[in-house]
Amino acid sequence: MSTAQAKIDLELPRLQAAYAAGTLTPSAVVDHVLHTIASRGADGVWISVVDRDTALTRARRLEALSADERAGLPLWGVPFSVKDCIDTAGLPTTSACPAFVYHPSVDSPAVARLLAAGAILIGKTNMDQFATGLVGTRSPYGVARNPFDADYIPGGSSSGAAVSVASELVSFALGTDTGGSGRIPAAFNNVVGLKPTRGLISGVGTVPACRSIETVSVFALTVPDARRVFDIVRGFDPEDPFARRDALKPDAVPSPVRFGIPARAALDFFGDAESERLFDAAVRRLGTLGSVTTDIDYTPFAELNQLLFKGPWLAERYGALREIVAREPDALFPVTRAILEGGRSISGADVFAGQQRCLVLRRQIERLWQDIDVLVVPTAGTIERIEAIAADPIERNFRLGTYTNFVNLADLAAVAVPAGFRADGLPFGISLIAPALSDHQLARVAARVHESGGLPLGARAVDPAVGRGAA
Amino acid sequence: MSTAQAKIDLELPRLQAAYAAGTLTPSAVVDHVLHTIASRGADGVWISVVDRDTALTRARRLEALSADERAGLPLWGVPFSVKDCIDTAGLPTTSACPAFVYHPSVDSPAVARLLAAGAILIGKTNMDQFATGLVGTRSPYGVARNPFDADYIPGGSSSGAAVSVASELVSFALGTDTGGSGRIPAAFNNVVGLKPTRGLISGVGTVPACRSIETVSVFALTVPDARRVFDIVRGFDPEDPFARRDALKPDAVPSPVRFGIPARAALDFFGDAESERLFDAAVRRLGTLGSVTTDIDYTPFAELNQLLFKGPWLAERYGALREIVAREPDALFPVTRAILEGGRSISGADVFAGQQRCLVLRRQIERLWQDIDVLVVPTAGTIERIEAIAADPIERNFRLGTYTNFVNLADLAAVAVPAGFRADGLPFGISLIAPALSDHQLARVAARVHESGGLPLGARAVDPAVGRGAA
Repeated sequence: MSTAQAKIDLELPRLQAAYAAGTLTPSAVVDHVLHTIASRGADGVWISVVDRDTALTRARRLEALSADERAGLPLWGVPFSVKDCIDTAGLPTTSACPAFVYHPSVDSPAVARLLAAGAILIGKTNMDQFATGLVGTRSPYGVARNPFDADYIPGGSSSGAAVSVASELVSFALGTDTGGSGRIPAAFNNVVGLKPTRGLISGVGTVPACRSIETVSVFALTVPDARRVFDIVRGFDPEDPFARRDALKPDAVPSPVRFGIPARAALDFFGDAESERLFDAAVRRLGTLGSVTTDIDYTPFAELNQLLFKGPWLAERYGALREIVAREPDALFPVTRAILEGGRSISGADVFAGQQRCLVLRRQIERLWQDIDVLVVPTAGTIERIEAIAADPIERNFRLGTYTNFVNLADLAAVAVPAGFRADGLPFGISLIAPALSDHQLARVAARVHESGGLPLGARAVDPAVGRGAA
Repeated sequence: MSTAQAKIDLELPRLQAAYAAGTLTPSAVVDHVLHTIASRGADGVWISVVDRDTALTRARRLEALSADERAGLPLWGVPFSVKDCIDTAGLPTTSACPAFVYHPSVDSPAVARLLAAGAILIGKTNMDQFATGLVGTRSPYGVARNPFDADYIPGGSSSGAAVSVASELVSFALGTDTGGSGRIPAAFNNVVGLKPTRGLISGVGTVPACRSIETVSVFALTVPDARRVFDIVRGFDPEDPFARRDALKPDAVPSPVRFGIPARAALDFFGDAESERLFDAAVRRLGTLGSVTTDIDYTPFAELNQLLFKGPWLAERYGALREIVAREPDALFPVTRAILEGGRSISGADVFAGQQRCLVLRRQIERLWQDIDVLVVPTAGTIERIEAIAADPIERNFRLGTYTNFVNLADLAAVAVPAGFRADGLPFGISLIAPALSDHQLARVAARVHESGGLPLGARAVDPAVGRGAA
């Protein structure tokens, strides 16, 4: 492959412009992507990759369509990856547990919608086993290599998803998000993580973690790209008991946007002065885009975090996987097994009590939206080295979720956007959070916030072999 | 007291007409009601009754208001009772467990709304302890006497509430309903039981049973009376975590109304040929009011019944009361204690699994409303003698809920209406069930169905000492 091929820009409007101009074809993109993947070797990003012939056949079929037919396919020829807890017909689903493997004959509804829109599946991405973790190191398939520094974690659980987008192996990726799995890896890979309101994307054909609060999520280089994908994959599915019929709120953005950030005492960067500096800079930029309130009470959010990962919802996680925990406990990643088994002894009475407490905290949070439109937090207070996580796999994982865990329990929508680079070159991100069903409004605000940073997309700042290089 | 006083008609429009005509005063009504209560002696209806001076002072204050002030009070001078699991300032709350007693200083929001509307509290009614039961016999305060036959149960758990209305000791009663507590006693006392959509009436200041699915309910002689009370007590309460903000659907009734009844094989009258005959007669009357579909699949309803009283929701019931179960187990009614303790061993994982299953069954039930507007079932398949319940307190209680248990789990609204009398004089009732938030529509249909029976109200058929006697 030539170096020229290695510079294909996979940002959606640019890829589509190249297709429209005839300077690129889906076959060439597939060829480029599969070659790049092969040349990267064991990068920990993939659990399975589509067979070259299958992908090229798909590309050629798309190329054989008439111009009219192509015009009806909003993702014509766009390569994407799917987290390995989401079914795609023809590739195994493992959820990063080889013993759990099964071979779905049907695409999950979200994948089916992407394929129907003309997108091209490249492969299934690595993840923290059973979507349990925010680190990306809890997998027997290795650690997806962080393109900014391979000594650091890629974030999880949707680790491979985020790296596949940052390294422009695909234009976008489907992930999932219960406690931050769709946002933490976005922050650590300088990409966008759109975590929709729960219940908008079908959860059918996905391996459950915390079914009652999890959602499929989208990774992309930019917010508009993520939103386009979100608008294609979402839709009420009567087969998903947690699906909601509610319509999205109109996407008109309030003017000025009222941003809120947690009171200083609640913000913890775990000693990471670089992240703190970058957060402060991001807040200053928010001030140019709207008003900023700086004293949001973080108490209810912090309490929800505890409920999710140290409380009743562990019982849901355990319950969803108790068969394999009972049948093949040794097949589980040791940390994952310990976490899941911790859910076994939680009582039903405690679950009801926790759910009620969750509703009380939601009411407290509801009041917030009278004063602000968007809550802004660091996506993570700091990033961790792989070896630090290995030394302290539970607590360091938990604190990564300080600003993400509560979001689904509180029934909120979130978008994680890149917000700068540390002196050591590692990316830092912030998350924008708003009420359920305000996903469109939130995406418009998040796009402005991301753009205001003027940052290179994905890994372009460090890896000129991908995309068009740093902006 | 004169016999003339004993004939006061407490149906709302008639009572209010008498007030308007000046032929009655609130003081006279209070006097009459308290005298009747005293003359009935130990009828098992009350756990506490308001002090005579308090009630008369209240009545006289209402009488001292100007005509304009009175006009602003839609329940001016209307006597009502409150189930003893609902707080009223000045009277103890026991939930039929003397050891549990506390003395609330604040009215529950529903009671506060009634008092603000000019109603007069008469007392707190007996109930199955902790609202656990459908029989009305699980109380240390005795069994509320069924006015039709004292050998038979009054139904529960809102036993005293229903009898207080049937015997016209009050115009209406507040009860609660988790699995039928607001409907079964209505059926066994020839009164109306309006069980609203969950979350419309504040649950603040009520003793929890299954907080996530229970609701305050209304008993009255007629559906329009119950609806008037419902419209006064309902209202979003931010202090109730389970409150819903959704607006009620418009109350326009579809024409013709499409009724649906369970397939014959699913209908069980437990050998009670009289109830079966009365149900068939009621269905024939439905045919004169709309169309009737007779093959509704009862499978999802039957499965929800099991989830409520033999499955995960027992853990919620246990959890809400675990302090007293631990502290004073001997203070509990023996059957109640056994049921509550059964909830202790239910796991958190099973609760999440049960809740998910509940949502799946709800989806199945949702499809039903494409074909019908109102599901019609017997409120209970049969009525039981007190001694039969004593001999088999669990199973006979459970089967009483065959047509009521599922309603709150399925997030539906229901109205129980009288539907005839057996040859032995005992009443029989049917329940009309419709989707959440269709309470107004349902009430209009239920009023027509009730009126179509041409039945005497409450206990008038058997107790000419109350009301205006049989129609």
